Amino acid sequence: MYTLYEMAASGNCYKCRLAMTQLHIPFERVEVNLQGGEQYGPAFKAMNLNSKVPVLKIDAQRALPESNAILCFVAEGRALMPSSPWAKAQVMQWLFFEQYSHEPYIATVRFWKAFSGAPERFAADIARCMPRGYKALDVMEQHLSRNVFFADNIYTIADIALYAYTHCAADGGYDLHAYPHIRRWLHRVEQTADFVPLKA
Amino acid sequence: MYTLYEMAASGNCYKCRLAMTQLHIPFERVEVNLQGGEQYGPAFKAMNLNSKVPVLKIDAQRALPESNAILCFVAEGRALMPSSPWAKAQVMQWLFFEQYSHEPYIATVRFWKAFSGAPERFAADIARCMPRGYKALDVMEQHLSRNVFFADNIYTIADIALYAYTHCAADGGYDLHAYPHIRRWLHRVEQTADFVPLKA
Repeated sequence: MYTLYEMAASGNCYKCRLAMTQLHIPFERVEVNLQGGEQYGPAFKAMNLNSKVPVLKIDAQRALPESNAILCFVAEGRALMPSSPWAKAQVMQWLFFEQYSHEPYIATVRFWKAFSGAPERFAADIARCMPRGYKALDVMEQHLSRNVFFADNIYTIADIALYAYTHCAADGGYDLHAYPHIRRWLHRVEQTADFVPLKA
Repeated sequence: MYTLYEMAASGNCYKCRLAMTQLHIPFERVEVNLQGGEQYGPAFKAMNLNSKVPVLKIDAQRALPESNAILCFVAEGRALMPSSPWAKAQVMQWLFFEQYSHEPYIATVRFWKAFSGAPERFAADIARCMPRGYKALDVMEQHLSRNVFFADNIYTIADIALYAYTHCAADGGYDLHAYPHIRRWLHRVEQTADFVPLKA
């Protein structure tokens, strides 16, 4: 059985839980003690030299880091990953958009505001990041004004990747009031079969 | 024929040129006037709502943004993308590592120092980013101490993605002297068939 090494509150880890649950792939969860620095120890670095969660342990020899690489691996050939090259290309486009243009601003501000214990210490970082987070939300809103899902108008791992931190963007102080298409899309994701929330 | 909308000096655009050249895929190049704001105009936003290069125009209806999504699209089923699920998972791992843990620090510092025209204005950003860039190089160095290429020990688009900004990291003031395995890997990439340099 797969083992997901994670921090339960992390949206990047939640992505993997949501996808594997919806794909009916059994897995165990192991919480990594990030506060205690477990990710820098030799056992964890043998799985991921980059010292980040999530990591999906596949068997004794194989461990896969990077949340969106895990999504691609578990979804390949299944319902959450389309098979046509062009539809798959759109999934990849949005997965890279999420990791480059969205997560570094929306997830990071959430961490500083809701989890760091000292948001005032990050005031300058938060001010630097929030306009970029809103820019990512603007791109999503425009796309969703003409599409019901991100890639090929079907529910895929691209929606899971973007849902993970968008649905809890308010934890970072982001206001989704002006984003009606995003709010309707969040609701659509929550209505998919076997959906599980972040805190489950 | 494909058309690559690009800024020639960008490593993200270079990735696509290098991969398509090595895969013998013909393409035309169109330089986007980023200084003049062309990426924010309606013609460009119809191809990429996120206003970034590169974009690969496939035909009249289809345009693909995100450099690493372009790499996946052009390499699928060909020599630069392995076919086994586990080898492909490793490619994806390093593509996401590149966009999340490497490019935002190594490419961005290069831009500020070599292209912004005012590196002193970005001194605080450079100081914030360089330790993270060196952390990415440390991860690469450790991986390459036991592997000749990034994914499955064969030359893939993961190497192309990481080569693009690593080989010109000195433009941003990064010193690769203490990274002998990276330097040997850079040389190995440069010896692959049909290799083309950034400035070609």
